[in-house]
Amino acid sequence: MSIEQRLQSIDTPFLLIDKPKFEANIAALRSRLEPFKVQLRPHLKTIKSIEGARHVLHNFDSPAVVSTVREAEVFAQAGYKNLTYAVGITAQKLPRILALLNQGVDISILLDSTAQAQAVAEFCLASNCSIPTFLEIDCDGHRGGIKASDPLLIEIGNILHQGGVELRGVLTHAGESYECGNKQALIAAAEGERAAAVEAAVNLTRQGLPCPVVSVGSTPTAHSAENLDGVTEVRAGVYTFFDLVMAGIGVCSAEDIALSVVTSVIGYNPQKNWLFIDAGWMALSQDRGTRTQEIDRGYGLVCDINGRIIPGLQVSGANQEHGIITVSGERDLSEIALDTQLRILPNHACATAAMHSGYYVADANELDYWHRIQGW
Amino acid sequence: MSIEQRLQSIDTPFLLIDKPKFEANIAALRSRLEPFKVQLRPHLKTIKSIEGARHVLHNFDSPAVVSTVREAEVFAQAGYKNLTYAVGITAQKLPRILALLNQGVDISILLDSTAQAQAVAEFCLASNCSIPTFLEIDCDGHRGGIKASDPLLIEIGNILHQGGVELRGVLTHAGESYECGNKQALIAAAEGERAAAVEAAVNLTRQGLPCPVVSVGSTPTAHSAENLDGVTEVRAGVYTFFDLVMAGIGVCSAEDIALSVVTSVIGYNPQKNWLFIDAGWMALSQDRGTRTQEIDRGYGLVCDINGRIIPGLQVSGANQEHGIITVSGERDLSEIALDTQLRILPNHACATAAMHSGYYVADANELDYWHRIQGW
Repeated sequence: MSIEQRLQSIDTPFLLIDKPKFEANIAALRSRLEPFKVQLRPHLKTIKSIEGARHVLHNFDSPAVVSTVREAEVFAQAGYKNLTYAVGITAQKLPRILALLNQGVDISILLDSTAQAQAVAEFCLASNCSIPTFLEIDCDGHRGGIKASDPLLIEIGNILHQGGVELRGVLTHAGESYECGNKQALIAAAEGERAAAVEAAVNLTRQGLPCPVVSVGSTPTAHSAENLDGVTEVRAGVYTFFDLVMAGIGVCSAEDIALSVVTSVIGYNPQKNWLFIDAGWMALSQDRGTRTQEIDRGYGLVCDINGRIIPGLQVSGANQEHGIITVSGERDLSEIALDTQLRILPNHACATAAMHSGYYVADANELDYWHRIQGW
Repeated sequence: MSIEQRLQSIDTPFLLIDKPKFEANIAALRSRLEPFKVQLRPHLKTIKSIEGARHVLHNFDSPAVVSTVREAEVFAQAGYKNLTYAVGITAQKLPRILALLNQGVDISILLDSTAQAQAVAEFCLASNCSIPTFLEIDCDGHRGGIKASDPLLIEIGNILHQGGVELRGVLTHAGESYECGNKQALIAAAEGERAAAVEAAVNLTRQGLPCPVVSVGSTPTAHSAENLDGVTEVRAGVYTFFDLVMAGIGVCSAEDIALSVVTSVIGYNPQKNWLFIDAGWMALSQDRGTRTQEIDRGYGLVCDINGRIIPGLQVSGANQEHGIITVSGERDLSEIALDTQLRILPNHACATAAMHSGYYVADANELDYWHRIQGW
C-alpha cells in the first residue's frame, strides 16, 4: 500500500510529520552552526517525544532544553542525562529537580531574582546538594531576566555562589526575534542576544564568579547569527518543524514546514463558497501567530495529501471541531469533494502539536507513530 | 488538611473545577428550561469526562451531544445510550457509527448536503442498517446548514427517507449568539434558532417526511429563550462551567465561572511591574474570545487560591509555559510572593479544558480527580 493510501486509512484529524523535511531541517541548523564551534542544545518543548528526540539528539549525553519538569522526567527516564529546565524555578518544583539529579541527570535550572536565589540556596543547604543554576539575562525587554549591566546580576550570583549553588552560567532568549520584519532585524536580534549574554558573563567573571556556559537562542536568531564570539551554546526548538510564523519572518519557506494536520472535507456552503473540514481549533490550535505579520495565514495554509500547497486556500475560521477553508479568487471550492484528505500547515508548530497525543511520521516508504509527552 | 492546603500540595499548573459552582450552573439551566417542557441535551464536548458526565446526565438513557466519534465511543463504553454526533458526517466515519449502533447505542448523525445524504443512504443499504440522521439547519449564516426555506431541505430529506435512512429531525445552532451585545440580541438569537428549526420541521412534515425531533441550542440562547414553541430539545455545553466570554455577553457573572487554571507565581519584572506565572498558553489555551468584546480580559482574570477575583489583575501575555500578569492601577505586583498559587478564569472553558488531561474537583471538604477524553 502506498503512503497516500495508508494515510487515507487513518481517521482524521491527525498530526503528521513529513520525515524527510524534518530531517533536512535538523541537518540544516547543525550545518549552519558548525563553523561557529558552539554547541547546539535543542529545545524539546516542540517535539516533546522520545522517539522524535532520537532524531534531534546524537546520544544520551547530548544537551537538550525542556519547558516542563514532566518533560525532564520523561526524557531522563528514557536515558537523556544533560537537560536544562528553562522556565524560572520556584521552591515548589525543587524536590523533583533534586530527584532527577539523584538519578544522575545533569539538570540545570534558571532564575532571575534574589528571592529565587535564596530559595535555591536554602534548598541546596537543607538537601545537601548543589543544583546547576543559570542566571536569566534580559536581552530585549521581552519577558523576564536581568539586564547584563544591572548590579542585581552580581548580587544574585553571590547569593548562589556563596550559598553553595553551582553557577552554571548565563542564559538569554531573544523572544522579540519572532516579531522581526526582515533579515537585518534578525541579525540585529541575534547580535543583541549574544552581546547581552557575553556582557553578563564578563561582568560575573570580573567579580570572581564562575560562568562556564554562555547560552543564547531562538530559532530565528540561531538561523541568523553572524557572530557567536563568546557564546558556548545555542538553543532552538521550532527549527525541527518550522511553521508559518517562521516562514513569515523569512527563516524558512512554507515548503520547509515538516508538520501538518491531516483533515477531511466534511461539508460545503454554496452561498459562501466555504469548505468545511474536520480540523477545528481542537486539532489546529488557536495560534494565530501570522495575524500580526505582513501576510495573515488564518489558521493555516492548505496542502493536498501529498503536501503540495494549494494556491489561494487557507483555513479562515475554526470552531472546536470545524475548520472553514476559503479561497482568494474565483475557484469553486465544491470541486474538492467530500472526504478528500488535506494537510494544513500550522501557524505555530509548538501550539498545534500540543493539541495531539502523538504524530504519524511518514517518509516515502514507512509510516510510524511517535507519542507526545503531556502534562506538567 | 484544608482544601486550600491540599491544592497547595499539587504541582502547578492544573485545571480545577469549583464543584458547588459547577452543580449550581447545571441546576440553573435545568430549572430555567423546566417551564418550557423541552428536553435538555447537554453537549459533552465541554466536560469530556465520564466522571463529570454523571453530574450532567441523570442516567444512561439521558440524551447527550458529542463533538467527536471518540467521545461517542468512550461515553458509550461507560454506558450512555442516547447520543448525537453533531459534526457533519462523512463516509469515512460511518463504520464507527455503525459499530456504536450495533452495541445498542442510539447514536444520531448530522448532515446538510446531497453528497452526504447519498453516502449515508448507500452505506445503510450496503450495511443493512438505518442510522438516525438530523438535517442541519442554518439559522444565522454562521457556518453550515440548509436554510429552512431552501428546496434542498426536501431534496435531502427525500434522499434519506427513500434510501431507508431514519430521518430523526432538524438541528440548528445559533453560533452567532456568542457575539451578542445585549439581552435583546440574545433573545432575538434564540427566537431565530427556534423559528428556523420549526419552519424546517413544518416544511419537512408538509412533504410527508418525518421530523420527530426539533433540536436547537447554544448556551447563550438556552439561557435567553423566551419562547420554545415547536422545539423538542435544547442543546448546551459551556453552561456547566461558564467562562469570561459568557460573562462578557451577560449570560453569567464572572463569579459563576466554575473552571479555572491553578498556577504559581514564578517571577517578577520590576521595570514593568509584571508578575510571571507558570501557566502559559499550554495551560490556559490561546483562546482570546474576549478580545472582540467590550472588555478584553486578556488570557484570563486572576483570582486568589480560594477563587476570589483580585480586582484589576489579568493575564495579559502568554508564551508556552509563561503567563504575564499585569495590573490596571498602581498596585505593586511584587507584593504577590513567589510560589503564591492563583486561579485564572478562562476566556473559553472548552478551549482551556482541552489543554489538560483531567480536572481536580474541589468542594468545601473533598478533592477529586476526573479524567478527560482526548483525541478523535
